[in-house]
Amino acid sequence: MVKPKQRENYAVIGLGQFGSAICQSLVEAKQEVLAIDLDEEKVNDFTNIVTRAVIADAQDEDTLKELEIGSFDHVFISIGQNIQASIMATLLVKELGAKDVICKAENESHARVLEKIGADQIVRPERDMARRIVFHQLQPNIVNYLILNDQVTMAEIKVDNPAFIGHSLAELSVRNKYHINIIAITTDGKVNLSPKATDTLQLNDLISVVGNTVDVNRFNGDAQLS
Amino acid sequence: MVKPKQRENYAVIGLGQFGSAICQSLVEAKQEVLAIDLDEEKVNDFTNIVTRAVIADAQDEDTLKELEIGSFDHVFISIGQNIQASIMATLLVKELGAKDVICKAENESHARVLEKIGADQIVRPERDMARRIVFHQLQPNIVNYLILNDQVTMAEIKVDNPAFIGHSLAELSVRNKYHINIIAITTDGKVNLSPKATDTLQLNDLISVVGNTVDVNRFNGDAQLS
Ligand SMILES: Nc1ncnc2c1ncn2[C@@H]1O[C@H](COP(=O)(O)OP(=O)(O)OP(=O)(O)O)[C@@H](O)[C@H]1O
Ligand SMILES: Nc1ncnc2c1ncn2[C@@H]1O[C@H](COP(=O)(O)OP(=O)(O)OP(=O)(O)O)[C@@H](O)[C@H]1O
Ligand SMILES: [Ca+2]
Ligand SMILES: [Ca+2]
Ligand SMILES: [Ca+2]
Ligand SMILES: [Ca+2]
Repeated sequence: MVKPKQRENYAVIGLGQFGSAICQSLVEAKQEVLAIDLDEEKVNDFTNIVTRAVIADAQDEDTLKELEIGSFDHVFISIGQNIQASIMATLLVKELGAKDVICKAENESHARVLEKIGADQIVRPERDMARRIVFHQLQPNIVNYLILNDQVTMAEIKVDNPAFIGHSLAELSVRNKYHINIIAITTDGKVNLSPKATDTLQLNDLISVVGNTVDVNRFNGDAQLS
Repeated sequence: MVKPKQRENYAVIGLGQFGSAICQSLVEAKQEVLAIDLDEEKVNDFTNIVTRAVIADAQDEDTLKELEIGSFDHVFISIGQNIQASIMATLLVKELGAKDVICKAENESHARVLEKIGADQIVRPERDMARRIVFHQLQPNIVNYLILNDQVTMAEIKVDNPAFIGHSLAELSVRNKYHINIIAITTDGKVNLSPKATDTLQLNDLISVVGNTVDVNRFNGDAQLS
């Protein structure tokens, strides 16, 4: 979506589900990517996709030196199940001078160890996505959301309460009643970025609002078919 | 964050990274959860956390019937590596009448098969999170974003260009120059939800904007220290 300013060097160690997807996304964004895995088959899958793909053991210091891993702008370490290998690889890559090492952690204690040995960023993709999915499952009318801070939420809410349909924002007195800001109304995929008090709501309109989380929640509850 | 209206019944089959995190999030949201895995150790980890945890093979129709899997409001199937088991389990759970079956897919062809046999929702957590992380890596000043549709983006952008600091929104003529709507300015964690033309920007302020993606990108580029 957004174009980065310059091309950077990335190394991705471990081509599981997550590492593979990282490579794919980086290539789509026109970045240089070195892909590394122990598994020949996985490496072969990437030879025609990334800048360079090599079969190597990330626990082997000499190999990492030869690959000049310390000179990469960013190194992803996406070895999951073999926690020991993930930790060893992180230690070596940091010792060899890599400035930005992003590690996938399996659990809380794995994350703590990675942090101690110098990982610059730690990610837990399955956990984070599970949280998003459960949130969405429990709040199906909140199509999209963005937590600005502890108190403030921005959300895109689907309106399906008949009491709202056919009424204008003024009639519903949304601003007065909920103290939220309506920043957009999407009708059939068309986004209206300057909603007026006289605009009326239609079934399944998406209303993008920003406000205190409690107010956004109250509006969300009322906008839903109970 | 948001409270659901009612308590529902969930079954989670497969307690890997993703399935475990789903259980955890559902329990935090006070939902009823049946957790199922082949692996005794994984099931034991959840006996004190979920409503009920059982050791079972999700490819065994009789077991699934005994567990009345068809009567659950939502069933997550989070078996990854054993694609055949994932497919068989999905088939059986749908045949037994489950209304909302959410499956984790390993890859595109796995996803297509799951869809054909009736999965109601298909998720690819590692891929989706990889996309988000790469986006964030390439655009570190976009702290948060929400794609409203193909054309419209809402983003929280960190301002670190000295040319912006100390100037008011009017002086920078943000609205005129970029055609974006500024919906909030966050300074040191304090959110100002009604930014005025006279408000001045400080270093590392977060500006929440909504507008056409090209305009948001242009503003993001200018707000950054090049
Ligand atoms: N020492 C090592 N050096 C290089 N690659 C390794 C090493 N150990 C494991 N790998 C590779 O890391 C990749 C990811 O590991 P694995 O699939 O076990 O993790 P995972 O937790 O299932 O991750 P994902 O959920 O992303 O698939 C595998 O392709 C594996 O071959
Ligand atoms: N037939 C089955 N019935 C019940 N559980 C199963 C079955 N087959 C596999 N599982 C369980 O599913 C869980 C998840 O599988 P696995 O860890 O291989 O997937 P994964 O792709 O690594 O997922 P994640 O990335 O979420 O860890 C494991 O705990 C495994 O024991
Ligand atoms: Ca894997
Ligand atoms: Ca996996
Ligand atoms: Ca796993
Ligand atoms: Ca995984």
